[in-house]
Amino acid sequence: MDILSPSLQKLIQKLTILPGVGPKSAQRMAIYLLQKKKLASLELAEQLQYCLENIHACAQCRNFAEAELCQLCQDPKRDSSIWCIVESIADLISIEQTGVFQGRYFVLMGHLSPIERIGPEELGIPLLLQHCQNHPIKEIILATNATIEGQVTANYLTEQIPKGIKVTRLASGVPIGAELEYLNDNTLFQAISQRTEMDNCSQS
Amino acid sequence: MDILSPSLQKLIQKLTILPGVGPKSAQRMAIYLLQKKKLASLELAEQLQYCLENIHACAQCRNFAEAELCQLCQDPKRDSSIWCIVESIADLISIEQTGVFQGRYFVLMGHLSPIERIGPEELGIPLLLQHCQNHPIKEIILATNATIEGQVTANYLTEQIPKGIKVTRLASGVPIGAELEYLNDNTLFQAISQRTEMDNCSQS
Repeated sequence: MDILSPSLQKLIQKLTILPGVGPKSAQRMAIYLLQKKKLASLELAEQLQYCLENIHACAQCRNFAEAELCQLCQDPKRDSSIWCIVESIADLISIEQTGVFQGRYFVLMGHLSPIERIGPEELGIPLLLQHCQNHPIKEIILATNATIEGQVTANYLTEQIPKGIKVTRLASGVPIGAELEYLNDNTLFQAISQRTEMDNCSQS
Repeated sequence: MDILSPSLQKLIQKLTILPGVGPKSAQRMAIYLLQKKKLASLELAEQLQYCLENIHACAQCRNFAEAELCQLCQDPKRDSSIWCIVESIADLISIEQTGVFQGRYFVLMGHLSPIERIGPEELGIPLLLQHCQNHPIKEIILATNATIEGQVTANYLTEQIPKGIKVTRLASGVPIGAELEYLNDNTLFQAISQRTEMDNCSQS
């Protein structure tokens, strides 16, 4: 005989869709929610349903939006001449939190992957190329991941983007706070090849 | 201007009620659910609502139940003469998973705590004492935590349980697999005081 009732088992199983949550933590969560947080849990379930029904992809940049355009695309103060291409909304948020970028974004929602049948269409690249015609874009920053897939996607985009637009890529090198001893060879290779000159007053 | 829309922010905030989930992981979860698991998320929200509406405390032992009695209390094969008192349903599940106990349970849903205004009433102790009158109970195992609060609760129960019933407590000592070097003094003190005799054939 099972210790847990069928609907509780079902809840536990469904909680394992959460990233980083295995069967053990899902069981702990289910018990905690039903035992100690009944009201808050109901609010959580309702809010999740509300978001699923009301949040969709922004018509311009594919970020989360509640209206036709997301909050960033609606903001008239942002610079429409520079766009940053990211793989996911999490990446957009990370860049946005640095405060260093004031332009527009475009979210691919993935990277090129023939095995998973993800091609340019799935990443909205035709829509992006359309923006290149319709907006006064001067520069596109390719902020895809520094993985093989991210690089391949960035290379593909570089080929596709009209020649008049400057295409840039995030700098690669030693992360701030890192110790060289623990870096992989590729990173160190990049960091040495693309070394930058220090501002040395005595030479001027 | 906020990066995230208000309802997404609300969802992230509500996800932090989950045990072990801080604002950073809640944000990761929310984005993941809305971006990659829309259907599964809806099922999760619905299942959580269903459980909140249909799961309540068993009338006999206070375990989760969908009927009046939980699955364990409904099982006629379990031994009604021995009861195990636990602080939480998670503890009940842990004991049940060992397979060593075949009797009935009673879930206190906490421990005595004057500061949090949790007294015998809140822990269902009157109901437990009523069971002591109405069921042919021979032994009660006090399986509260080995914390100060758990010990205090166990001591209180020992005083309240009618004299004819044998009251036992879980053994305390060295956890299986542990190294003595890393044990706290109290545990080692208990383990030495309550040392058990080895089966030594040469002495018989």
